[in-house]
Amino acid sequence: MEFTFLGSSAGTPTRSRNVSALALGPNGPKPWYLVDCGEGTQHQLLRSRYSVMQLKAIFITHIHGDHTFGLPGLLTSASMLGREEPLDVIAPPQVQTFIRAAIENSDSSLSFDLNFINSEATEFHWEDRYFSVSTVPLSHRVPCHAFVFTERNIERQLQQEKLQADGIEPGPEWGELQKGKDVLLPDGRLLKADDYTQIARDPRRIIVAGDNDTPERLTDACQDAHVLIHEATYTQEVSERVGPWPQHSSAEQVARFARQVQLPNLVLTHFSSRYQSGPGGTPHINQLAAEALQYYKGQLFLAKDFDTYRLEKDFSLHRLEAY
Amino acid sequence: MEFTFLGSSAGTPTRSRNVSALALGPNGPKPWYLVDCGEGTQHQLLRSRYSVMQLKAIFITHIHGDHTFGLPGLLTSASMLGREEPLDVIAPPQVQTFIRAAIENSDSSLSFDLNFINSEATEFHWEDRYFSVSTVPLSHRVPCHAFVFTERNIERQLQQEKLQADGIEPGPEWGELQKGKDVLLPDGRLLKADDYTQIARDPRRIIVAGDNDTPERLTDACQDAHVLIHEATYTQEVSERVGPWPQHSSAEQVARFARQVQLPNLVLTHFSSRYQSGPGGTPHINQLAAEALQYYKGQLFLAKDFDTYRLEKDFSLHRLEAY
Repeated sequence: MEFTFLGSSAGTPTRSRNVSALALGPNGPKPWYLVDCGEGTQHQLLRSRYSVMQLKAIFITHIHGDHTFGLPGLLTSASMLGREEPLDVIAPPQVQTFIRAAIENSDSSLSFDLNFINSEATEFHWEDRYFSVSTVPLSHRVPCHAFVFTERNIERQLQQEKLQADGIEPGPEWGELQKGKDVLLPDGRLLKADDYTQIARDPRRIIVAGDNDTPERLTDACQDAHVLIHEATYTQEVSERVGPWPQHSSAEQVARFARQVQLPNLVLTHFSSRYQSGPGGTPHINQLAAEALQYYKGQLFLAKDFDTYRLEKDFSLHRLEAY
Repeated sequence: MEFTFLGSSAGTPTRSRNVSALALGPNGPKPWYLVDCGEGTQHQLLRSRYSVMQLKAIFITHIHGDHTFGLPGLLTSASMLGREEPLDVIAPPQVQTFIRAAIENSDSSLSFDLNFINSEATEFHWEDRYFSVSTVPLSHRVPCHAFVFTERNIERQLQQEKLQADGIEPGPEWGELQKGKDVLLPDGRLLKADDYTQIARDPRRIIVAGDNDTPERLTDACQDAHVLIHEATYTQEVSERVGPWPQHSSAEQVARFARQVQLPNLVLTHFSSRYQSGPGGTPHINQLAAEALQYYKGQLFLAKDFDTYRLEKDFSLHRLEAY
C-alpha cells in the first residue's frame, strides 16, 4: 500500500504546503483513492504520479473548506479530460450540496456519474476489490470521521502437502485454487479453495484521520492498524494558547496516544501555517517532531507535500525517494 | 496603472499556468482589484506582491468555474487572516449563490461583509477614488462582460497666470486648488478649482475582457482604450477544428480586430492548456504570437503567470522585470 501527501497545511495554504489531500493506492497510482480535497488539489496532481482518470473514489473527512474546496475544480477538470467512469464520493451530505451548487452555478456538467455515499451513516462500510473501508467518528467542531483502509484479497498460500495427499498433482488446478477459486475436477470432485489454501498474512491497515481533538476515539481502530495518519496542528504550548475552540490536536497529545496504543507507525500532518520548513524558519516544523518524539518511541514521520510512503507486506513503513 | 497575471490558462490549470485571474492596481499592489478568480488564485497571491488585506474589489466576468472556483478559498482565507474591511464583489448573480453555498456548506463565516453587485445590470457603473468601471457585454456560452477600468482623479495643472492675474499669490490656496478643492478666501471670494486648474491629460484606460467569440463587441470601448487584455484560446486552425461551440476567439480574430480599431497595446491570455511554453514544447505558445503578429502591428504581448505590466501616464505599456 502506498500513500502520497498532496497537502499538509491546516486552514490556509503556504508557499510549500497545500491544504489537506492525500492520495492512497494498493500499489502505486493505478488505481488510487483521494482522502480530502482542499483547494488546489488538482494542481498538486499535475506534479504527482496520480491522474484523475485512475481515481476510484473520494473520501471526505468533514465539510471544512480546507478539506473540500478543491472538489468542484477537480471534478470538472476530470470531465474536461473525458472521464466516463462513475466516481464514488464518500462524504458528509453537505458536500453533495456544495458540489451541486458549484456545478449548477458555473454552467458545468460532468461527463461521468457521481455516486454520493453518506460518510456519516452509522454502520458505514465501503469496499471494492482492493480495500474495505470503515469509519471512526472523531471529535471536531463539525462531524468528522477517520477512514480505516484495510486491504482485501490477500494472496493465498497453497497447502501443497494436503493437495498431494489427496492425489491432486501440480497443474492448472493449483493456480485456480491459489486465486481463491473453487475447482471442479473431471472425476466430479469439487475442491474448495478455502480447504486447500490459507491466507498468507494479516491484511495491511492504514487509518487516515480527519481533524480531531481526541485521539483516544481511535483506540479500538488502532489495535490492528499499522499506520495512523493524524493531524498535529500545533505544539502543546501553542494549543493551550489558542484554546480549545478549534478542536485540534497537539503533537504531544497524538504522540501520547500513539504510545499508549503501541502504534508502530505514526505520520503527523495538517500543520498550522505558522510552522516553517526552511532553514532558520521560526517557529520551525521540527518543534512538532521534537515534541512528539518525547512521548512516542515508534516510527515517527512528519508529512511533507509530495512525500510518498509504502507500507510493505511485512508491515514496515518506508518513505520513498521523491518521484 | 499596473496589472499582474495570476493565471493565463483556459479551462484547466497546467504546471506553468493557472486558470484565470488578474490583479490590477492604480500604482502597485496597494490597493488592488481582482478580475476573475479561478481555483488556486489565493495560492498565486502567496507568490506575488498582492495581499487579500489590500484587495478593494473583485470583478467576475462570467460564471464558468475556471473564473470563479477560487472565490470560496480566497474569501475564507482573508477571513482567517482577520480582514475586516467590506469587499465589493461585482459578478453575475449566480456567483453570489455559489459563494453562499460554499460558505454555508463548509461551516464557514466571514469576518467582513461582502457587497454583491450585479455585473449584468444594464447601466452598470462602479467607482471609487481610483477607478471608474463600466462593462461591455460580450458573446460567450453564458452572459459575460468586459470591465473597462478608467482612472479617476487625475492630477490637475494650476493655471498660474490666471491666478496671478486675479491677485492670488502662491500659497496654501494653490495647493488646495491643485487637489481639486474649492477655496474660500478671507475676503469672501470663492475660488473654484475648475476655474483655476485643468486636468493634465487624458485618463488611462484598460479593458479586461472575459471569454468572448466576437471581439467586435468592444469596438466602441476600444476607441479611448490604451490596453486591451483579451482571450486568444486557440490559433485559427485549432479554432476551426474545435468548432464554434465553446465560443472563444482565435489569435487571428483578436489581432484583426485590434488592427481595425487601431489599438495601441494588445495583451493576449486564456490559452488552451494544449499550448506549451517550454523549449521544444508542441504545439508551442509562440504559434499564437506568430499568428497575431501577421495581422496586428501595434504592441503585442502574451500573458505569462506573474508577469507585471505598467501603463505609464504617457500611455506607453511596459512589461516589468519579475518581482
